Amino acid sequence: MDKEGIANIKSLALDMITKAKSGHPGIVLSAAPIIYSLYKNHLNINPIKPDWYNRDRFILSAGHGSALLYATLYMTGYDISSEDLKNFRELNSKTPGHPEVHITPGVECSTGPLGQGVATAVGMALGEKILNSRFKINIDDSVISPIDFKTYVLVGDGDLMEGVSYEACSLAGTLCLNNLIILYDSNNMTLDGSTENTFKEDVCKRFEAMGFETYKVNDGNNLRQLNFEISKAKRSNKPAFIEIKTHLGYGSLLQDTNKVHGTVLTDEDLTQLKNNLKIPLEPFYVNETLRRDLIGFIANRVGEKYNQSLEIYDKYIQDNLDTIYKDFKFYFQKDTYDISNYNWNNINSKVSIRDINKSVLNEISNHISALVGGSADLNSSTKAYIDFGDNIMPKKYNAKNIWYGIREHAGGCISNGLALLGFLPFFSTFLTFSDYLKPAIRMSSLMNLPVTYIFTHDSITVGKDGPTHQPVEQLSTLRSIPNLHVYRPVDLKEIIGCWQSILMNPNNPSALIISRSEEIRLNNTSASKSCKGAYVLKEALGPIQGILIATGTEVITALKVAMILEKKHINLRVVSMPSVEIFEKQSNEYKKQVLPNLKTIVIEASNCLSFTRYTSYNYIININKFGKSADGSEVLKYMNFDIESIINKVINILNQ
Amino acid sequence: MDKEGIANIKSLALDMITKAKSGHPGIVLSAAPIIYSLYKNHLNINPIKPDWYNRDRFILSAGHGSALLYATLYMTGYDISSEDLKNFRELNSKTPGHPEVHITPGVECSTGPLGQGVATAVGMALGEKILNSRFKINIDDSVISPIDFKTYVLVGDGDLMEGVSYEACSLAGTLCLNNLIILYDSNNMTLDGSTENTFKEDVCKRFEAMGFETYKVNDGNNLRQLNFEISKAKRSNKPAFIEIKTHLGYGSLLQDTNKVHGTVLTDEDLTQLKNNLKIPLEPFYVNETLRRDLIGFIANRVGEKYNQSLEIYDKYIQDNLDTIYKDFKFYFQKDTYDISNYNWNNINSKVSIRDINKSVLNEISNHISALVGGSADLNSSTKAYIDFGDNIMPKKYNAKNIWYGIREHAGGCISNGLALLGFLPFFSTFLTFSDYLKPAIRMSSLMNLPVTYIFTHDSITVGKDGPTHQPVEQLSTLRSIPNLHVYRPVDLKEIIGCWQSILMNPNNPSALIISRSEEIRLNNTSASKSCKGAYVLKEALGPIQGILIATGTEVITALKVAMILEKKHINLRVVSMPSVEIFEKQSNEYKKQVLPNLKTIVIEASNCLSFTRYTSYNYIININKFGKSADGSEVLKYMNFDIESIINKVINILNQ
Repeated sequence: MDKEGIANIKSLALDMITKAKSGHPGIVLSAAPIIYSLYKNHLNINPIKPDWYNRDRFILSAGHGSALLYATLYMTGYDISSEDLKNFRELNSKTPGHPEVHITPGVECSTGPLGQGVATAVGMALGEKILNSRFKINIDDSVISPIDFKTYVLVGDGDLMEGVSYEACSLAGTLCLNNLIILYDSNNMTLDGSTENTFKEDVCKRFEAMGFETYKVNDGNNLRQLNFEISKAKRSNKPAFIEIKTHLGYGSLLQDTNKVHGTVLTDEDLTQLKNNLKIPLEPFYVNETLRRDLIGFIANRVGEKYNQSLEIYDKYIQDNLDTIYKDFKFYFQKDTYDISNYNWNNINSKVSIRDINKSVLNEISNHISALVGGSADLNSSTKAYIDFGDNIMPKKYNAKNIWYGIREHAGGCISNGLALLGFLPFFSTFLTFSDYLKPAIRMSSLMNLPVTYIFTHDSITVGKDGPTHQPVEQLSTLRSIPNLHVYRPVDLKEIIGCWQSILMNPNNPSALIISRSEEIRLNNTSASKSCKGAYVLKEALGPIQGILIATGTEVITALKVAMILEKKHINLRVVSMPSVEIFEKQSNEYKKQVLPNLKTIVIEASNCLSFTRYTSYNYIININKFGKSADGSEVLKYMNFDIESIINKVINILNQ
Repeated sequence: MDKEGIANIKSLALDMITKAKSGHPGIVLSAAPIIYSLYKNHLNINPIKPDWYNRDRFILSAGHGSALLYATLYMTGYDISSEDLKNFRELNSKTPGHPEVHITPGVECSTGPLGQGVATAVGMALGEKILNSRFKINIDDSVISPIDFKTYVLVGDGDLMEGVSYEACSLAGTLCLNNLIILYDSNNMTLDGSTENTFKEDVCKRFEAMGFETYKVNDGNNLRQLNFEISKAKRSNKPAFIEIKTHLGYGSLLQDTNKVHGTVLTDEDLTQLKNNLKIPLEPFYVNETLRRDLIGFIANRVGEKYNQSLEIYDKYIQDNLDTIYKDFKFYFQKDTYDISNYNWNNINSKVSIRDINKSVLNEISNHISALVGGSADLNSSTKAYIDFGDNIMPKKYNAKNIWYGIREHAGGCISNGLALLGFLPFFSTFLTFSDYLKPAIRMSSLMNLPVTYIFTHDSITVGKDGPTHQPVEQLSTLRSIPNLHVYRPVDLKEIIGCWQSILMNPNNPSALIISRSEEIRLNNTSASKSCKGAYVLKEALGPIQGILIATGTEVITALKVAMILEKKHINLRVVSMPSVEIFEKQSNEYKKQVLPNLKTIVIEASNCLSFTRYTSYNYIININKFGKSADGSEVLKYMNFDIESIINKVINILNQ
């Protein structure tokens, strides 16, 4: 049945591309035997229970092969209809142009931007290791875990050229993630042409150097060899990398040319292909017997494992009703957590804002076991660390702190992978280096994943490290990403409020922006009010002449300005706005209450224009150029952002 | 003198850090022998002529070692005074917190954000190869080039963990850039701690796999070994990678701990260090005899080569007055080019906008030999390709088209390296993937480099490839980067105008945003007016009721809207605004002329708020959420951005 199965998957995928008039035939024809073998013989899956927690994960990192994936999912019994295949790339279909998680059953991760799929797979492999080491029971004198699955990922040359794939795989090698199996569709051809001028590495040797066990399949159409090497890889005690030599567009008239990568095949080509594959020419032909047999074969192969897995899981639950991990949900996290009653009174606020955030993070971690994370080698600086959470190390995974190394982009992708397993991951670096992981933050947002990015050192006041380390435009960048909630609290109470909001919004990733300021304690800040995105922090003393909006550290500036102007009988309200996006979600009534129709001035050490929702461009006092290496206060003065300059600007605006 | 020289460099750098109360002692103490050996024995430099074009380049990719670099530059005779060292990290000093090019003589590149320095060095090495193969003369029966230098780069563990360093080095290996020598300060220690949990690769093996020749120095304090391996590396016919085992903070009480990475040493520690180094305790002590000797030694070693190099260069110039490359300037390019008289009449405008841009690029390339570039494996799609420019290949460098592979971030950094040599590089990918190279674009902007980023497929109309491929927030991101000029022309004439503006602004990098639209020809567009950033494209027919501003493809939308509304006796002016940043530089008079005080509505398929300079937030008709996989026109409708929806919005706004 293998030959017919592969042929039918190929023909369906090509028909989809032909009907959609766009798509990528090249990878369909090179990688069909790989993905077919994987689904038929290796993946522990239950297509009618695609959410079975202990299933193997498969990620198509080369997301442009979506048609191949959908055709395979269809032929293996996932809830995808022939109609769905015909709607490939149509509006609101189950089969969009690139794979999108939460839309298609069996799709584990949205992919398309190259390199990120494999990095996300590393996150899943790491997540499995954490869960596997956390959850253990004794059955028949042996210690086993209800969580015990593998993560497979199919990559192409493009994935491996992207730096993020290197970053993530280097960490996977270091951490010995032997539950990760990378299948490399290796055909020396990319969109523009041969890899002769671009990618002449000995890729297997590179992966060996990175701590992988490597395997080679010399002919990707040789199923025996394919299955043999995959079987070996499954038993590896290192992460596994299988290079599979294939031909792009195998069997097409354009085989082994770059044209077949992303061009719809001609009728002539499709016909000769189908003839050679012994597939009837009728579009969307399905060999129903074969499909039934394939579905049956997989059910037979996996059935017992599936039942066993559920039994072990049930037994674990019965035996461990009081486990410290009982809050962990074994599905994609859509839960909200109300943290308002956690123990906030013992938190020391006489420390730096970063240390306060650390205490808050630690208190949350005491209650929510799903919270894991780390930084890009900046724990010591960003303080995003769980004190009693232990460190994840090679072969030691029962811990909460992940050491990402200096790999921001991988950190974001791995966080996405963890979130897809139900974790609530955090990832931290300096705000200016958020640039390095922008592509991953976009994917968190597209996939609605509850990842919390903690970005510290949040303005030009970083000072002496100079302009490369001083964020200016990063708040603009972050606030422009759809779905992402950006928070910039000023003190302990606002930090608690922001975390409360973060944990009440599991469909949105968050960026929590933390200053490098030392001790800050304000009187009237409020956690519960911060959850509304903005609130009146200080009312005008006399007849109100205007409103100052500020975020983060600039709230202190705004309070100072207001108090100095008070003495000059200029009465201003100060509004603290830790989150523009959250404030936007409040009722019009509340918004009007906080921001009535008065002259409104914004103070923020960024060039973000989100505030033009509330006031005009000219009333925003901000930073529009790169900083300087000097003491923070001197940089503020140089940028005309010291108190005196700001007061003058405020007075000017009020007089306009 | 070596021992004393190294000791004095160390003590100076530590004194700088102590006085500045911030900096990074760890790398000073680990890498001083490396950088000292390099400057003394290997680099072909002339410290009193730091702009000598044929000098070897040295880039400190681990930019946090700035104090070490400045102390070395001082001791080797660059125009840096003892006073400058004392002003380390002070406002407007010659010695900022991280190295900044154009500020400090001898600093070749701004560094700090890890990984980018080495990627930029790859760009310099590639640039040298191009120039070396372009410029040849016969002297004494042998063919030599006036351009013949090496690029050295010092990296730490952090640089090598960053994906961008992998991307760039993989390309360097593929292209056999044997003029590149990477020195790896290898000490298994980073800011947060040991690399035991983060980076256990066999790094040399990885670089071998990538096409490098590797060398190992087991003791970074053994100068004989150091010099021996560097000498071998210089003769390599592959790019060279030298792993040098060192101790972070060597000699400090905190040696081999992560604390010494970025913490100012205690007085006690500094004292014991200086005692052991046999350096007087007085801060900023300089052994002037030693300094003079060191300067003399380098002058002696390089003197003849320097003179020879100038002779060869002069001879080349005399012999090749009519060379096709005569426009190439051998210094950092601050020249402007007036392209208005190039041959624009023969350009076919009956093709897609991307093809038009290609023709413009090709015509410019006919005149300006400094123009080189390529894409991240998307030439076929972005059309950023020079037709008669040949392709750069392994060991074949006399060409203009660079095949970057699927490596966006490296593409940006390599472009920066090329620009630092005087090239006018372009780099191209889809707009949505501009995210991948944001950190490099920021560095282009910080360094004021004339790199042109060509980003195509510029809106949700990309269609069927789906939301991962549909840019929404990227224009916001790009327009928020200080110094970057963003251009979004609609047709041939505007494209010419934008390129004219790009080439008149050599201190600004540019992002040229090109749509995927097919043939567009408008009547009243203008190249010369586009150079002003915005202009009146269509005047209101009757008494003017408002202004429509649009960019790129939306200019066509705006024209359609205006013409439809005209029939309803609503008379609107249409302003095409290919560049907000350039329009901002025009006189107030011109700006008022184009945008008088009238109701102004903006139409752009992005969520960019830059236009709040000219109108209120609510008058911007734009896109605020992620797209969908479907036909472009359906996506427009789904996003309420089709003509009908826009007309309704315009009417609503006019009625407000």
